Amino acid sequence: MTLVTLPGQDWIDAVGPVPGLELAVWDMAGPPERADEVKVVVPPYMGAGPLLPNIRHAPSVELVQTLTAGYEDIAAVLPEGVGLANAAGVHDASTAELALALTLASLRDFPDFHAAQQEGRWLPGSIHQALADKRVLILGYGSIGRAIAARFTPFEVELTAVASTARAGDDLVRSVHGVDELPSLLPEHDVVVVIVPLGPATAGLVDDAFLSAMPDGALLVNVARGGVVDTDALVEHLGAGRLRAALDVTDPEPLPEGHPLWSVPGVLITPHVGGASTAFKPRAVRLLREQLGAYAAGRPLRNIVREQGQGA
Amino acid sequence: MTLVTLPGQDWIDAVGPVPGLELAVWDMAGPPERADEVKVVVPPYMGAGPLLPNIRHAPSVELVQTLTAGYEDIAAVLPEGVGLANAAGVHDASTAELALALTLASLRDFPDFHAAQQEGRWLPGSIHQALADKRVLILGYGSIGRAIAARFTPFEVELTAVASTARAGDDLVRSVHGVDELPSLLPEHDVVVVIVPLGPATAGLVDDAFLSAMPDGALLVNVARGGVVDTDALVEHLGAGRLRAALDVTDPEPLPEGHPLWSVPGVLITPHVGGASTAFKPRAVRLLREQLGAYAAGRPLRNIVREQGQGA
Repeated sequence: MTLVTLPGQDWIDAVGPVPGLELAVWDMAGPPERADEVKVVVPPYMGAGPLLPNIRHAPSVELVQTLTAGYEDIAAVLPEGVGLANAAGVHDASTAELALALTLASLRDFPDFHAAQQEGRWLPGSIHQALADKRVLILGYGSIGRAIAARFTPFEVELTAVASTARAGDDLVRSVHGVDELPSLLPEHDVVVVIVPLGPATAGLVDDAFLSAMPDGALLVNVARGGVVDTDALVEHLGAGRLRAALDVTDPEPLPEGHPLWSVPGVLITPHVGGASTAFKPRAVRLLREQLGAYAAGRPLRNIVREQGQGA
Repeated sequence: MTLVTLPGQDWIDAVGPVPGLELAVWDMAGPPERADEVKVVVPPYMGAGPLLPNIRHAPSVELVQTLTAGYEDIAAVLPEGVGLANAAGVHDASTAELALALTLASLRDFPDFHAAQQEGRWLPGSIHQALADKRVLILGYGSIGRAIAARFTPFEVELTAVASTARAGDDLVRSVHGVDELPSLLPEHDVVVVIVPLGPATAGLVDDAFLSAMPDGALLVNVARGGVVDTDALVEHLGAGRLRAALDVTDPEPLPEGHPLWSVPGVLITPHVGGASTAFKPRAVRLLREQLGAYAAGRPLRNIVREQGQGA
């Protein structure tokens, strides 16, 4: 039997038995039992950062499977030759539905209704923005971008997908536009949903020029990373009352008390809860079952970010 | 040319010319010009109630086309033999997307985030309810119920449709259950969206027994009419912390200041804005074009609630 460690008994119970594998608990806070036999390690989901260097206590490890999409921290301390797979995909449903929640709540003026409810006041009838008929641009068209597109589709919208480079479309969009087309695309869209990874090419991508190209009354939704948006430029555009924003991520994050973004008009903020939902665990458990089953059977794994036997 | 009145020049401009018809403005606040020639009347959308008896000033009218789904007020004052068509369908998109907005905002704890935002406070990480994996029951499966089902479909949920009587399903649900099956269905569902018409069979349908049959933590969404829900029973269940509710309609409505429903835990209230969105006008204009075009060409009309030539 090949020894595999999971971060808690709850994970072992949820995953259930995998033929050929022995599942044991290791929370990485110290050395594991039978350290020399451990071949696969699944580190804890949250707060694992400071514990990750303890991977050195498992000298025979061949594969690390994270429960997060991010893997930079474990990659930095992983010995040469150990394979690494991440959990890309497990947050797609959760993040995509938050993008819709932010879009709908912002367009339909939920913050106004909530404030009125707190005062026990029934607001008089008026017309609110519908999502129907809106031209929606999804900036970032990987796995989560497609999950967002799927959820927008039945809302009677026009969907445009933008990725780093133009390519053919799929069953949801006719074509995927390149990011170089943004200057001509932005003025034609009422809602922009940002779900690009943060990196050198995307840091500050949503800057003053980007925001200036959005039409009056347009809505910016950020479910990516705070650093993709130039916060000062956004505060300025919101302060002018020209745009709306619905943000699950901010820069800085957490947003400090007294920051102008908290109270500028037209902004709705959730505290980076895109992936923090009940949708996570069942999807993570499904991924672990698939990955461990494939490992036990010698089949290829998904989500490999570093092949076994390759250098760090 | 057959004379047709619309409630404002903006409607005439939006509908555009219809071959064979002459479009004129009549806001119903007094007699129309060329009263004897008016054959078709489209009453004003909002606040038309007190003006509707002025339909008597159009003695040759053959057809009234409302801009609302409700038609009781105009039917009550319409002379015998005048046909009547309503605007069923024009609010489907708007109401259906509000149902999704209410569901997502409630499950994901948007009221907590909004309260924290007002205080400029970033809430610590915690797990919120996702819509994904939820078992969703749509109570009322007419035109709006199907629009709601279409929008829930990509969210990775299990959908159940319930109507007054059981019937075969469609492309969205395998089958439609009868309302008599509710006692066995309710305990198996996490979200119940109510979109039945209010009438003798549905007034107070969501009573203490109904709410007691919903499982702990379940969410009731009402986008129908306030009177479908027994408000006292709902307040009691919410007060016990056992259920959540997201309500676009209440009984009484408007909900008066100081009513316990405003401040009971777990409730999110919007002030009957299901149809009051930018989605209305384009859909109403499309309906008028179709209906007036059919009338001019002598083709059958949609949404007839009283045939021309029949009694009141």
